Amino acid sequence: MSITLSQAEAALAAAREAAEVIGVPMNIAVLDAGVHLKAFSRMDGALLGSIDIALGKARTAALFGLSSEAIWEFSKPGGTSPGLELTNGGLVVFAGGLPIRDENGALLGAVGVSGGAVAQDLQVAQAAVAAVQGG
Amino acid sequence: MSITLSQAEAALAAAREAAEVIGVPMNIAVLDAGVHLKAFSRMDGALLGSIDIALGKARTAALFGLSSEAIWEFSKPGGTSPGLELTNGGLVVFAGGLPIRDENGALLGAVGVSGGAVAQDLQVAQAAVAAVQGG
Amino acid sequence: MSITLSQAEAALAAAREAAEVIGVPMNIAVLDAGVHLKAFSRMDGALLGSIDIALGKARTAALFGLSSEAIWEFSKPGGTSPGLELTNGGLVVFAGGLPIRDENGALLGAVGVSGGAVAQDLQVAQAAVAAVQGG
Amino acid sequence: MSITLSQAEAALAAAREAAEVIGVPMNIAVLDAGVHLKAFSRMDGALLGSIDIALGKARTAALFGLSSEAIWEFSKPGGTSPGLELTNGGLVVFAGGLPIRDENGALLGAVGVSGGAVAQDLQVAQAAVAAVQGG
Repeated sequence: MSITLSQAEAALAAAREAAEVIGVPMNIAVLDAGVHLKAFSRMDGALLGSIDIALGKARTAALFGLSSEAIWEFSKPGGTSPGLELTNGGLVVFAGGLPIRDENGALLGAVGVSGGAVAQDLQVAQAAVAAVQGG
Repeated sequence: MSITLSQAEAALAAAREAAEVIGVPMNIAVLDAGVHLKAFSRMDGALLGSIDIALGKARTAALFGLSSEAIWEFSKPGGTSPGLELTNGGLVVFAGGLPIRDENGALLGAVGVSGGAVAQDLQVAQAAVAAVQGG
Repeated sequence: MSITLSQAEAALAAAREAAEVIGVPMNIAVLDAGVHLKAFSRMDGALLGSIDIALGKARTAALFGLSSEAIWEFSKPGGTSPGLELTNGGLVVFAGGLPIRDENGALLGAVGVSGGAVAQDLQVAQAAVAAVQGG
Repeated sequence: MSITLSQAEAALAAAREAAEVIGVPMNIAVLDAGVHLKAFSRMDGALLGSIDIALGKARTAALFGLSSEAIWEFSKPGGTSPGLELTNGGLVVFAGGLPIRDENGALLGAVGVSGGAVAQDLQVAQAAVAAVQGG
């Protein structure tokens, strides 16, 4: 089972709402469990440079079933896997990408958010996940 | 002026509705006038190979302010511009990509649709355009 | 000897003037004899999709010291060199790219023009060449 | 509103003048707010390796509406966004790229300068910005 468009739209809507609350226009990407684009929103005024980052965070989270920043723990200086972020055509290893799972923990897909400070991106991504998984 | 997210969402919704009427799940991409991704929907069951085609059709239409298949008239055997489809990192030169304009004819962006027969893709793209431009 | 910035600026100015006469905003690229970008102008309203084409026409003309459309004679069906347009990362093989030579015929660089009909692009490129070579 | 060719030409002229004052030939790129090439000059004698850097600095500044070196603050060791410079096909995160804004602070485009020491590149980029924004 992979994420449905209905679930992806719910994730986008929740992310946009969370972004409006903090007043930061965001790019939000939802990928399925096969790491293919399912749905995307760029809010008016969101940075153009963050489109690729939102897609990259979602891709990173979907590829490994981990948050995007968890990959940094492996690839950072002193980590077990230096250069991991250079694989798969380039990963994005800071926060804002999260896996989305069903009630049994199976991977449905992932969301990636970019446009604000990293803590803001993460907060908005969490809202997207909660809209699908419950929160 | 470039397309707003509200306009892009209206285009996606109209496209999904038109696709449901004909019973063919589609990939639908909306780009802004600067040829950057604004919004995207992949309907459940839509072909994975059509994600890139929908994006490419929208990109082609936004880059030239023409329908995607209009580019083929230039690039086809005997046309004035052989190999035009190889420029810009590769264009998609069959129907399903359309420019979206405002009431004064200025380019707002473009939509690209892929997932069915080419005539079906075009029909769904026309529905998306009509939702923004009126129809 | 390669083209100077002063010569390249003269080529751009002549091209812009010729484009204004026919009322078609153009992208104009000037490359040096080493096939590196020397100067570029995108006139207001010129097609975004023509940026890459103008650069490609200039690159094609500089690489071979021939007009861009001369390459098509080699690569077209029945020509001696099928697929030639796929070499060098992709050539542009329709008119609008011209070599620029000094008074002894040595290659100084090339100009590429895109934004109108192919005949218009060629006319504007010829104006650019004439500004450097005399015409 | 994006940058006009007249504004871009004024930016290039001011940059060339500033570069001549310090005696360092520069590559200068101006992009529009949609991150597309608008105008470019390579001064005679400017390094070939700096063409891509000037374009990359301008692209970085246009994508994020920030100076190119501001991106380094995010991506440097201990920053919030390790590997940010690997997104968007590769960013250039040292000084010499600056956004260009209108009198209301809206992004018009960006300039990127490369050819000298980084401090010289920045100085020349500042002259380009001042020619459009006033200084």
